[in-house]
Amino acid sequence: MNDAARTQRSAGLVGVLGGMGPLATLDFLHKVLAATPARRDQDHVPMMVSSIPQVPDRTAAFRGDGESPLPALLACGERLAAAGVGLLVLPCNTAHLWFDDLQAALGLPMLHLADAALAEAARRAPGARLGLLATDATLASGLYLNRPQPRAVQWVLPTAVEMVELVMPGIAAVKAGELARGRDALMQAAQALRRRGADALVLGCTELPLVLDEAGLGLPVIDATDALARAVVAWSLTQREAEATGALAA
Amino acid sequence: MNDAARTQRSAGLVGVLGGMGPLATLDFLHKVLAATPARRDQDHVPMMVSSIPQVPDRTAAFRGDGESPLPALLACGERLAAAGVGLLVLPCNTAHLWFDDLQAALGLPMLHLADAALAEAARRAPGARLGLLATDATLASGLYLNRPQPRAVQWVLPTAVEMVELVMPGIAAVKAGELARGRDALMQAAQALRRRGADALVLGCTELPLVLDEAGLGLPVIDATDALARAVVAWSLTQREAEATGALAA
Repeated sequence: MNDAARTQRSAGLVGVLGGMGPLATLDFLHKVLAATPARRDQDHVPMMVSSIPQVPDRTAAFRGDGESPLPALLACGERLAAAGVGLLVLPCNTAHLWFDDLQAALGLPMLHLADAALAEAARRAPGARLGLLATDATLASGLYLNRPQPRAVQWVLPTAVEMVELVMPGIAAVKAGELARGRDALMQAAQALRRRGADALVLGCTELPLVLDEAGLGLPVIDATDALARAVVAWSLTQREAEATGALAA
Repeated sequence: MNDAARTQRSAGLVGVLGGMGPLATLDFLHKVLAATPARRDQDHVPMMVSSIPQVPDRTAAFRGDGESPLPALLACGERLAAAGVGLLVLPCNTAHLWFDDLQAALGLPMLHLADAALAEAARRAPGARLGLLATDATLASGLYLNRPQPRAVQWVLPTAVEMVELVMPGIAAVKAGELARGRDALMQAAQALRRRGADALVLGCTELPLVLDEAGLGLPVIDATDALARAVVAWSLTQREAEATGALAA
């Protein structure tokens, strides 16, 4: 071990700790591309992406039914740090339960996915009753509910039965590549939130936007993946301006 | 500089030196996922992906009109080596003009995209006259023409006028996100090859499969991106078997 060369830390290089799941990571990367004003390859955001899906199941660990994903997450984060990234993001909601541990251990700047999504909700659906679709662990840990809210929020959550029968099996189906089956279950869960008064919907798991969209749901959707992608692009543009200013001053 | 931690080299971790362009890299990653037998996140191929598109233009450098991409490619390769990858692949045909330089400098195992594509052509279209669509630099350097051929091949190439008026502008349009305009130009170039006797078509630039497919073209297509993705999955499965055997032996 420790046989690899060290590399230069690059302030503007975005580290993406992904692979949870790998398709959700690609969805995130597509959303970064779509949010970037670019005319040629060289205009795009420089990224180093860890897609190492051998991270123990996050929800099982939270429930006490499986090993902690933290050592695997730290190993991925250390690989990205060794590759010289200047920022770290996690395109997986549930992995954010270990956000503070990762930040403390790695000492890298990080952007929090739920903060990006809540800012987007405050902007796009101010005063809305927000339906929240997410994993069992994301809901029960209060990942969204307990973050500082840019605006007071009324939450509409799935029932326990909906979680067990629709949301968790729907997410597992998407991860297994069975998109049609996943979409059916998750659409039913979304419609239940709508019937109980949600007038906008937060997709608080990166598997959800793979099968749900605003057109199909008929109500405003806050896609946490997309919100994080836009936050990354804004960060990168600011970083590039700072580097250009620094270059002029030098 | 040199402030990042060293990490452990992992034999089974696939390093993807991408970003040329970023959308073509995502197409490659999707093809790796599609070619992987997986029921859950943890079954997928572990990858570390460099999508740092600030690599100087490969075709311009080959023509003598721009700086060499080699220092930037080496820097990306060194980041991936520092992150501990055990294999390196380049989902960009033209970047393979610097394949030997990268392999010599980095000392990592690598899979060659043209070898993967030529093996696929020999398997799927034995004896076919192969039309080749690729950048000016890929064609003129003989990247495909001069590789060891698994079977004798008859090549059908675009004319200089087709390269200048259709292929290069078509690829540039795809890189700029103007997919419909790119598709129009590239379809015309493909149809010209077909009229001149090509009975299968090699897509020898990773931008091409973003807009061309077998159904639209009406003749067998050898997608070099897909061939490399399948080669990576086969390598990864062999690697995992070796690790499992090693674990049992230990």
